[in-house]
Amino acid sequence: MTDIESAARPLSATARTRHRRLREQGRTDGGELLEVLRAGFIAHLGVPAADGFMVVPTGYGFDDQHVYVHGSVASQSLADGLPEVCLTVTIVDGLVLARSVFEHAVNYRSAMGFAEPRVVTGPDEKLAGLRLISEHMAPGQWSYVRQPSRKELAATRLIALSTAEASVKVRSGPPDDADSPDAQLGLWAGELPVESRWGRPVPDPTLPVGLAAPAHITNRQGNEVHPG
Amino acid sequence: MTDIESAARPLSATARTRHRRLREQGRTDGGELLEVLRAGFIAHLGVPAADGFMVVPTGYGFDDQHVYVHGSVASQSLADGLPEVCLTVTIVDGLVLARSVFEHAVNYRSAMGFAEPRVVTGPDEKLAGLRLISEHMAPGQWSYVRQPSRKELAATRLIALSTAEASVKVRSGPPDDADSPDAQLGLWAGELPVESRWGRPVPDPTLPVGLAAPAHITNRQGNEVHPG
Repeated sequence: MTDIESAARPLSATARTRHRRLREQGRTDGGELLEVLRAGFIAHLGVPAADGFMVVPTGYGFDDQHVYVHGSVASQSLADGLPEVCLTVTIVDGLVLARSVFEHAVNYRSAMGFAEPRVVTGPDEKLAGLRLISEHMAPGQWSYVRQPSRKELAATRLIALSTAEASVKVRSGPPDDADSPDAQLGLWAGELPVESRWGRPVPDPTLPVGLAAPAHITNRQGNEVHPG
Repeated sequence: MTDIESAARPLSATARTRHRRLREQGRTDGGELLEVLRAGFIAHLGVPAADGFMVVPTGYGFDDQHVYVHGSVASQSLADGLPEVCLTVTIVDGLVLARSVFEHAVNYRSAMGFAEPRVVTGPDEKLAGLRLISEHMAPGQWSYVRQPSRKELAATRLIALSTAEASVKVRSGPPDDADSPDAQLGLWAGELPVESRWGRPVPDPTLPVGLAAPAHITNRQGNEVHPG
């Protein structure tokens, strides 16, 4: 587990990440970036494509310097020398139900970073990066299942994205119109939370009868998918 | 409620949306696009930015021709004449836990579309589009809370994105390695579902004591956030 407390370096504030809107929601603490990365496990990656760019979902892993993704998440594989990509991780915590349509909002945690993709070629970093992805998404599986063969490793392209240029936005709490004239309308207002939990493991129907799921899988049932 | 059954027009298959990878997961039915749009409520929008592009989360509404989003989701407002944007909606249904690291996957439903942003200026379409966003995200609120004033309408930029060029990918079910030599390893394999439900409404702490939430809000508690 990455120690998020140890990584409270300040986030950058380039023109793109300076939080022009919703300034009160911007965070500038590298520890908060790692908290968002830890709470999520799917990113949306904006990558150059033939006629512009495309936005593709992908799993990821991370350490306190990088996010790692597989290199073939897009139709065109990510490669060295490509322009920057933008990676965004968003966790939706609930709806903010205000007294007017205009003040409705969403409670969320979101991290956005810009980086030039770097293809990981060193075998040690490649194995370590793949392990970070695997253990972030499915902790315990790396040592339980068969690890990558040499052939599989060769067929897997791993991309490292520096987290040096990144920003975090968070919204939480009730609506912002408690002090407005709309508060006199007598309407209910508040939050409607999204609660995401891991469900009961579903065995592959081809498994032998009686083959039980290991504890590192069954123990997740009922746990929050995106711990706060 | 949009009638998703009536809109089973074929999706386009341009070079970008032809499903070069994971071909078996591509869907070409416009009804499936609407199902993904209906099941989600947050999109990731790739928009041009100063030095390239950025990927921002945003709520949305839709009909059988358009997705509607607010026009100031990015640092730079979306405007007519901008190049295409890419909008992606992803619902994560669970982890696919295979017998080898290499075969691990994610069960998901995802829709991706490309369109030139069109600023909605007609007052009727603008009100209708804002209502689609509101009623998709928080059904029942449009008629319960105060609707937009003329001033609020003027301050709100609404963007319409055609869904004519779009694709859908879906993965579901167990891992793909039941027929592989790894099936002899004696390991458990299967799916770990993500279950997202609406939680108990949290009242704004400033509400008068005894002001109950209306049924259109309380009735959502326990319902699936992303119905399949």
